[in-house]
Order: sequence, then structure tokens, then C-alpha cells
Amino acid sequence: MQSPSSSTVVCTRSSAYARLKSVGVREVQLTSGLLHERFRTNLAAGIPAGWTQLWESHTIPNFYVVSGRRPGEVKGPRYIDSDGYKWLEAACWAYAHAQDDTLKAWIDEFVDVIEAAQEEDGYVNTHFMGERQSLRFTDLDHAHEIYCFGHLTQAAIAHHRVTGESKLLNVARRFAELLYRLFGPEGRWGACGHPEAEMALVELYRETGERRYLELASRMIDARGRKPPVLDGSIYLLDHAPFREQREAVGHAVRALYLYAGATDLYLETGEAALIETLHTLWEDVFTRKAYVTGGLGARYEGEAFGLAYELPNLRAYAETCAAIAGFMWNWRMLQVEPDARYADWMEIALYNGILSGMSLDGRRYFYMNPLESRGGYERSPWFGCACCPPNVHRTLASLPGYLYSLDEQTVYVHFYAGSHLDTRLPNGQPVQIRVQTDYPWSGDIEVQPSPGSYTLALRIPGWAWEAELRINGERLEATPGSYAIVQREWQEGDSVHLSLPMTIELLRANPRIEEDRASAALRRGPVVYCLEQVDLAEGSLLDIYMPEDTSRLRAKHMPALLGGVVAIEGNALLDTVPRESQPLYVPVSRYIPPRHREVRVRWVPYYAWANRGAGAMKVWLPITR
Amino acid sequence: MQSPSSSTVVCTRSSAYARLKSVGVREVQLTSGLLHERFRTNLAAGIPAGWTQLWESHTIPNFYVVSGRRPGEVKGPRYIDSDGYKWLEAACWAYAHAQDDTLKAWIDEFVDVIEAAQEEDGYVNTHFMGERQSLRFTDLDHAHEIYCFGHLTQAAIAHHRVTGESKLLNVARRFAELLYRLFGPEGRWGACGHPEAEMALVELYRETGERRYLELASRMIDARGRKPPVLDGSIYLLDHAPFREQREAVGHAVRALYLYAGATDLYLETGEAALIETLHTLWEDVFTRKAYVTGGLGARYEGEAFGLAYELPNLRAYAETCAAIAGFMWNWRMLQVEPDARYADWMEIALYNGILSGMSLDGRRYFYMNPLESRGGYERSPWFGCACCPPNVHRTLASLPGYLYSLDEQTVYVHFYAGSHLDTRLPNGQPVQIRVQTDYPWSGDIEVQPSPGSYTLALRIPGWAWEAELRINGERLEATPGSYAIVQREWQEGDSVHLSLPMTIELLRANPRIEEDRASAALRRGPVVYCLEQVDLAEGSLLDIYMPEDTSRLRAKHMPALLGGVVAIEGNALLDTVPRESQPLYVPVSRYIPPRHREVRVRWVPYYAWANRGAGAMKVWLPITR
Repeated sequence: MQSPSSSTVVCTRSSAYARLKSVGVREVQLTSGLLHERFRTNLAAGIPAGWTQLWESHTIPNFYVVSGRRPGEVKGPRYIDSDGYKWLEAACWAYAHAQDDTLKAWIDEFVDVIEAAQEEDGYVNTHFMGERQSLRFTDLDHAHEIYCFGHLTQAAIAHHRVTGESKLLNVARRFAELLYRLFGPEGRWGACGHPEAEMALVELYRETGERRYLELASRMIDARGRKPPVLDGSIYLLDHAPFREQREAVGHAVRALYLYAGATDLYLETGEAALIETLHTLWEDVFTRKAYVTGGLGARYEGEAFGLAYELPNLRAYAETCAAIAGFMWNWRMLQVEPDARYADWMEIALYNGILSGMSLDGRRYFYMNPLESRGGYERSPWFGCACCPPNVHRTLASLPGYLYSLDEQTVYVHFYAGSHLDTRLPNGQPVQIRVQTDYPWSGDIEVQPSPGSYTLALRIPGWAWEAELRINGERLEATPGSYAIVQREWQEGDSVHLSLPMTIELLRANPRIEEDRASAALRRGPVVYCLEQVDLAEGSLLDIYMPEDTSRLRAKHMPALLGGVVAIEGNALLDTVPRESQPLYVPVSRYIPPRHREVRVRWVPYYAWANRGAGAMKVWLPITR
Repeated sequence: MQSPSSSTVVCTRSSAYARLKSVGVREVQLTSGLLHERFRTNLAAGIPAGWTQLWESHTIPNFYVVSGRRPGEVKGPRYIDSDGYKWLEAACWAYAHAQDDTLKAWIDEFVDVIEAAQEEDGYVNTHFMGERQSLRFTDLDHAHEIYCFGHLTQAAIAHHRVTGESKLLNVARRFAELLYRLFGPEGRWGACGHPEAEMALVELYRETGERRYLELASRMIDARGRKPPVLDGSIYLLDHAPFREQREAVGHAVRALYLYAGATDLYLETGEAALIETLHTLWEDVFTRKAYVTGGLGARYEGEAFGLAYELPNLRAYAETCAAIAGFMWNWRMLQVEPDARYADWMEIALYNGILSGMSLDGRRYFYMNPLESRGGYERSPWFGCACCPPNVHRTLASLPGYLYSLDEQTVYVHFYAGSHLDTRLPNGQPVQIRVQTDYPWSGDIEVQPSPGSYTLALRIPGWAWEAELRINGERLEATPGSYAIVQREWQEGDSVHLSLPMTIELLRANPRIEEDRASAALRRGPVVYCLEQVDLAEGSLLDIYMPEDTSRLRAKHMPALLGGVVAIEGNALLDTVPRESQPLYVPVSRYIPPRHREVRVRWVPYYAWANRGAGAMKVWLPITR
């Protein structure tokens, strides 16, 4: 077991089937660059604004009500507690980096009232206390009680790992024991309509060593797809088939991805072949047939669900912020199973696009859906009636340092490049420090400074790069995009590792089975996907804009004053001057008027930064003229 | 006022602002061809199967329960009565053509129990009688009470017009009087969340001459968009703005289109300029920005709503059968306002594609959604929990003869070509008979035989035709596609009018603002849109099929044994042989593998006939190679 001070998000240090071992959030400092800026904004603005929203939305007052400390009534949706728990988890990760008294006071107050709200038998869920008490565990499909328990537990583990305090962990354990009595081997089959607790229970096992929690997570996964069904047998709830027989990513995307992530956690502990085989199959389905170029997942509004293979509408992309985060979480766990760079590639794509887009530049407003096209009128909100996304962004960004590196016995993996500093020990006890200096993703120049010692560096060469130049003290080494470059040596003081990635403007094409992207293209530079906003279009409607024929004339330009400092892409696009609004919807080809193009000056900006200058129209994919 | 025996569907004979006057369902016989076949199948199979479904779904038993004639409880959704009323309307139109004793016995039994169910004050709605009585008119947004009244009234009018009996009409009038007391000028503002009653009330005014019903229809239209809202102020319920200020087709498509149709009915009586100006604006929005090539309307699953302009997904097209029918009904009313052939063009497209697709070839199964692509697994159902579509198909097909012709003072308009016979009198009293012989839409040869006399023939030259040849006794006359060819003369015995339309295979292109259809094409022959089903594809996946480069090599072939007898299109399409399932979702253009094509033998079939040979994959739009 790790020490409580090891502030890992997903602690795989003792996981028998984890090739990679996590490092603590506290062992990594973000020091410069875009991720650092987003991380700081989350700490300085996002998390404090979240605290205010938790009060205004009645999330925290509900705990005061059920604990009898304040009069009033419980308000909000059934799953409202989870918003608070996710924020609390975020606050704890934030506290690992910013030992701020105000933040600690908030954490303490919230932990205190959660403990006060807990009942004798371990139950705590503000919605099902008081007059709705008799409804407990009567609607596993929709009540979200076990889901809320899961987020309570994730918060409790973060709290324990960061502060060393056991108060909230004990709350979570008491609730876990209740669930074990109800749904463990001596109880009935049970699982939550919204998976999450599976991950939390495995993590609770990791934190406490108590195998009952692992057993319960396993039973919750096994509870799905039984006959007669434990839930409702629906695809929406992932109850349509036993987990190990699920072959396609279907149903509610966040639920599905949380389930996959939980099953991966279980595999990391048990090594069950059928589990990883299922997970590989589902991964292929999600990431070769159902993912947006932004890392967004879940195409459909209806049921917040995965679409069919290649069903990826742009204007009506659902691409919930939580789903991009869930995909990030799942890929992280898969990466700990095996250091396959594809997992890290999709994490990076999601992070720089579909996740960062979830928060406004000022850190105070959030997207629920992340479409790849807007006709205008869509903008971020300070909070939601169903407020799952904002605190999910909070906890993801606050724990970001914990995702940059992993270890194995004698190797340091560098997954994501950001100005940062790692200070850790290898599993064999050897102290290691790694300093990374870079302006990534705006620049492809990355300087890695390893501390002296005999160990291996595994540097991720992103799959998006068509070439990479890796030099150690000037000597060029092999570096294949889409893999980890492994450098084993006796590092000396002053050794310099330089990785150079080609930050060229890439014109992307989609698999032609994606109808909405056919004969269209998008721009990406490094891991950053670009979009065109109406505000950056000199004239015409975004609906009539085409990609220029020659994208080699586009120029990347660092603009410190634009959108918090971005590399924009400038050049000419093509405007179709045929008045399309007065053309019929459908005409015989003989009467079809092909586009008549005129060059217009435009500027592409990073997708994540869109809708920060008003709620104008936006497009990622533009038609090409061929 | 017309005589009760005039079996018109929408009786514009006395409408001051109707340029065209309706003819009765009974004044037209369908004699041969596709429409005749669908009409007969509806009478022989659809309507009888519907009667069985009304019993099995508890629609009719509910009336027995509330009338006290049978024990039991009321079951089904709030709007279930309307399914019965729509079927009853269909049965009456059917009875106009098939004086079948069994059918009459069904009608009599149903009418009898509706009358028995009606309460003293005129109220009848099985859902809100008995224990839910206190909820009457407490939820205009969602209860569908006034909607059900509307369909009761439409059935009552059809019953009166076809049988001459007043029993059901009196039921409807008593209910209308109750509504007038509640929501008329002396009552409160009120309208139904689901429009329909507006059309019904105008029609009831036409049938009875009672102006209160017209006044009430007018008030229900005026009730929308008030401040504070009479309904919920939502777009979904079309309550977001006063009707005359609505400028875009938004919200639930069927509700919207029924409202537009009702407002058109009101205009036909009042001639209010602001109404027709609004209707023209909405029409432009629907039919130049939001309609499928099949005449399907309402793009979104979510809220069964219109999408934004040019938002027309194929795989996830909602295109509810009821919405295509509602568009047909609205265009019919617009056509009576002014004989603009565009209205008839869209009616014809809807009829031969998005409406006929709603019923299986055997007449016993129905589509709710009518997508333009399927990956397989989607097929028609005998009935639905929300069974609005099946009886809407029943009544539309049963009343079809009433839509082929209209009259004005001395003109016979021929809107739709089918083997048929019209026997009517012009408004000036002159008897006229028109016989049409054709195998339309399979053939473009149309023979029109007018009875002797001095009157004008107005022959619709479809907008889809790029040329037309019109000859009278061999002499060629002007005939411009997309207009009515007007021929005024003293018709002699034996005069022959021959219209020849070019039944060529047309390759259609969509407005390039429609992302899903960009760089794609569809086939249409005459008014019939074609699709490709997996079963007609020699090899490969439909996902990888492209349009042939040279469509002039495709051949239309009449196949009497295929799908009830259709003209199919045979030829070669192109199969992309690049294994797309193993390609990444997104690649830089330098690594993009363009399609590698091989010719494969395929056969297109009419869209309306798809999914009659199993629930295989289907596509209307295929990518083109350019």
C-alpha cells in the first residue's frame, strides 16, 4: 500500500496488472505554458466560482438541511450531491498545490457537514433523507444513489491523499460497508444506472487495502446484463448484455465510459483476460468509429448516447464535456495497463480540444455540449440544472499534474509535454527529478532535463506528428511518432534531451464513412484542432466558406493578446458567392450551380477557445473544393 | 353552404379567400396505377387491421369503459382517443368508396359508443373522465384534450359528409359549444399544446355555418405567444411568439405544421393579410431550408422538431410520417389560396415518398420515423404506444381521391395524375367529367379525356420535369414545368389531351449548405425518389458505395414482381475497396487514401418501398466521386 501522502489520482502502485505506476499530483509542478495557465485559472477562478455555485444551487445547503443544522428543504435533482463531491475532489487536488487557508476552510466546512449528514448505518444522500427515506435503493436505474456514493468516495480518497485526514474517508467507508451488506455476496444484485462507483470502489480498495470493496466493484460490473435484469435491461443503462459480452459502445456515453473505466480499474487488479479483451474491443469501437476529431464522445442528444459507427454530426454533436473527460479517464487507465501511445494520443486530443473547450477562458463558465459547428447563440453557462460538467472540469484540471508522468520499475514515462517539474522516486526507491521546458502546444521544441542516475526515460512521440527529432546532448536518436522513445542510460548532470516536433498546419481528412465530414477538412496544428468563428471572417456567412485549395499559404501566428494568448492561423479561405439562400434545396445536376469562389481573409483559432468573444457561428470542418 | 352529400375533405366551396374549390372524395374514382393500388390496400388491409389494433390497444374499450357499458379501466396515453378518431375519419372516407356493411357496422358501433361516452356538458375524452375528471383543462400544454376534440370533429365532419348522418356531428358540436364557453370571447384564453383543433373548428364552421367555431379557431391561434403565456411560452409548443410574428419554422414539426394549416384555413375564410404574409414566410423557411428530398419534415429526434436551416441528417432524420402528412395538408390549403404549382409539387414529393413510405406494401405495418439512411434493423410496426402515424396514413390514403382535382368558377384543376375519373359540377352548375388514363408515376404518358362543354382545364406541369409536351388532338400547346397549363376551350366529344412528361433518371444535388448531402447525389425519376438497399447490392457495404460517374448508363426497368410492381433502376455503382473499417477516423491529407473504386452491380428501388424485404441497410444519398 502506498503512503497516504502519495497524492495519486489513480493509484496503480500496487496494482498487479498495471505496467505503469502513477505519480502523485503533488509530485509534479506545472510551471509554464497553456496547461499551466488553465490549471492556474481553474484554481484561481473556477474552483472559487464553483463554491459559490454550490451554495446558490442549494447543493451544500441540502447537507445542512439533512444534518438538521439549518431549517429548510432539500432542493435540486436526485444527483445533486455528486456535483458537490466532484467539486470537493477538485478542491482537494487544488489544495495539494495551493495551500490556501480559504480553500482549506471550504474543504473543512464541506467535509464536516457531509459527516454530520451521514446516518448511523452509513447512508448519506440528501435527496433520499427525510421524507424520501423510504425510497432508498428502490430505483437503482435512475436514483443515482450509488453514483453519488462513488463521487463521495473519490472526493474522500483525494481528501485523504492530499490532507492525510481520515474524516471523509471514514464516511465513504461506512457507506461502502452499507453497500457491501446490501449488494455484496450476501446481499442482492445491485448496480447503479449511472456507473461511477466501480472506479471509486477499486480506488477505495487501493487506498485501504480492503478487498471487500474490490469484490463489490466486481459484483457491480457483473450485475449488468443479467436475466432477469437487475436494472431495466436497457441499452441506455448498459444493462442490455453482460459486460464481457458487450462488443459495441452504445447507450449513454458518460455512463458507458465510466463503466469501461471502472472495468479497466478492475482489470488492473485482477488481470482477468476476458475483461481486457472486452475493453480492447470497446476501445476500438469508440476510437476508430465513434470519436470526434476534438476527442469529443457521444454523438446524440437523444439519450446523450453514442451514435452508430461513423455517426458524427457536427452541428448537433452532443459531445458532452463529461464524456470527453470520461474518455480521458478511461484512456489513462488503459495506458497504465500497457504503455500504448494510442491511449495517450487520444487523451491529448481530448485535453487540448474537447475538454479545455468545456471551460471559458476566465474559468467561470462551462459548456455541457461541445458541438463542432454552431450557428450562433450557444455559449457557456456559469452552472446548470444538471451540473455534472463544471465540477468535472474542476477536478480534471486540478489533478492534471498527476497525468503528465508515469513510472515503471526503472522508467519515467513522459506522456504529456508542458512546462513542468517531476520530483518522485522510482518504485525501486531511486529518487528522480525531471524538468521539462517548452511552450507546447504552441511550440514543438521540448527540453527535458533528467536528474543524474541510472534509469530509463520513455518519451511519448505523439501520433499526430509525422516526424520527430530527438537528440540527447546533440546526438540524434530514433523517435517514431505514435510510440514511446525509450532512452536507457546513466544520466549525467547537465544532460540535455531535446525533442522537436513539427508544429506544421495539418489539413485533416476524415474517414469517408463519416457523412458529415465528407469532402471537408479541418485544420490541426500539433494536438490543437482549429475552428473558424464568424467574428474572424471578413465577409459572408460561415455556411458558405470553403477551405483554401492551397493550405501551404496559411500562416501560424503567435498572438499574445488574442484569447489569452494563442497561435492563430491566418490566411485566405474561399467564399462561395452563389446566393445559396435563394437556391432550391434539391436540383437535378444539370441545374446545379457549383460554388463560385472568392478569396476572403480569415483567421482560425483553437477550438477550445471558441465562444469567448460572443456567441457567434463556428465551424471546425470546412468543405474542400475538390 | 354545401350540401351534406358533398364529401370534400377540406370544403373551400364557400370560402371567400379560396381561389380553388374542393371536390368531394366521392366525386373522384381512382381506377388504376400506384395510387389506386395503395388506396385499395389501405381499404382492404390497413383500415381493417387498424380496427383490430384499436381494440387491442384499448382505444375503443376505453369508450366502453367511460360510457359505463363495460367494466374495466381506461388505459393508454392521454391522446389515445385521437388515434380512434383518425381511424374513424379514415373509415368514413373509405366508406364513401366501398359501401361495405362490415365497415359501416364498425363505424356505427364506434360512433354509438362515442355518443354514449359524451357527458351532459359536451365533454368527451376517455382519459379525463372518471377519476381524472378534476384534471380537465388543467394542463392545456400537454393534456391533448383540445387536440382530441379536433380529431373527433374531423371524424364527425367526414361521417356527416359521407353518410349524411348527424349523430357524431352533434357530439362534436356539443363539445365545440363547451369549448366556446370556456375559451371563446366570454371565456379565458386557451389553446392546445398540440394544434389541430384550429383546422377542425374552421371545418366545423364550413360544415355548419356557425361562426362561433370560426371565432374560436381564431382565438386559439391568437392565444399563442401571449404575455404572460397561455401555454408555457416554449418553442416546442409554438408559444414563443404571437403567431403573426413567427418567422421561422421551429418546435415540434407536426404541431407547427398543423398550426400553419389551421391558420391557412382561417385565412381562407377571413383573408387577413398578416396571416397570409406570415404563412408565406413560414412556407419559404420550411420548403427552401428544412425539407427532405422525400418531402419528410422535422429533422430532429429531440423534441420531434424542425432543425435549423439546412440541418437535414440522413441516418438520424426524424421525418415523422405525420409530419409529411401535415406538410401535405398545409400545402393543400395553400394551394386552395392560390394555385401556385410549388405547393402541389411538394405535396406530390411527399405523397410518393415520405408518406407512402409510412405504410408497408401489405398495408399492415407503419413507420413512425422515415430516415433517409438505415444501417439495418429498422422496420415498420403494426402499431405504436404513441399511435398517431398509422391512422394518419389511413385517413390520408382513404381521402386521396379528394386531393386530385380542384375547381374554380369555370376551371377544372388537375393536380395529380393517376388513373382516375372525376364526375362533378363546376361552381356555376355545369356538369363536368374528366377521365385520366396513365401509369404515372412509372410512365410519363398521361391521357386526359374531358367531357364536352365550355370550360377550362388547368393541368399541373410538375416542377420536377425539365420539359413537358402537351398536345390537344395532336396540336402542341405551351406547358411550362412548375406551373399550370391553362387550356380554355369548347370541349368536344372525343377530344384528347395528351401530356408527356420526361421520365428520365435524374441525378439530384442538394444545396451545398446541407452538410450531410454535400458531395453526394440521389436518384429521382419523375416524382419518385430512389434508394439503395443492401439486399440489392452484389457485394460490399452500403457505407462504401458511391454514385457511378456516368449515370446515363443506368436503366429504368419495370419489374411487375418486385415490391408490388415498381420501376427499378439498374446499373453499376462504385464500391470503394479501401478497407475503411481499419482506417483511422482522421488523418492528415498527405496520408489520406482516396477511394479506390470498383464497379458493382446494383439496383435502386423507390424509397417508399424500402424495408419490405427485411430490415436491411438503406441509403438515399450516395457520395459522388468528384
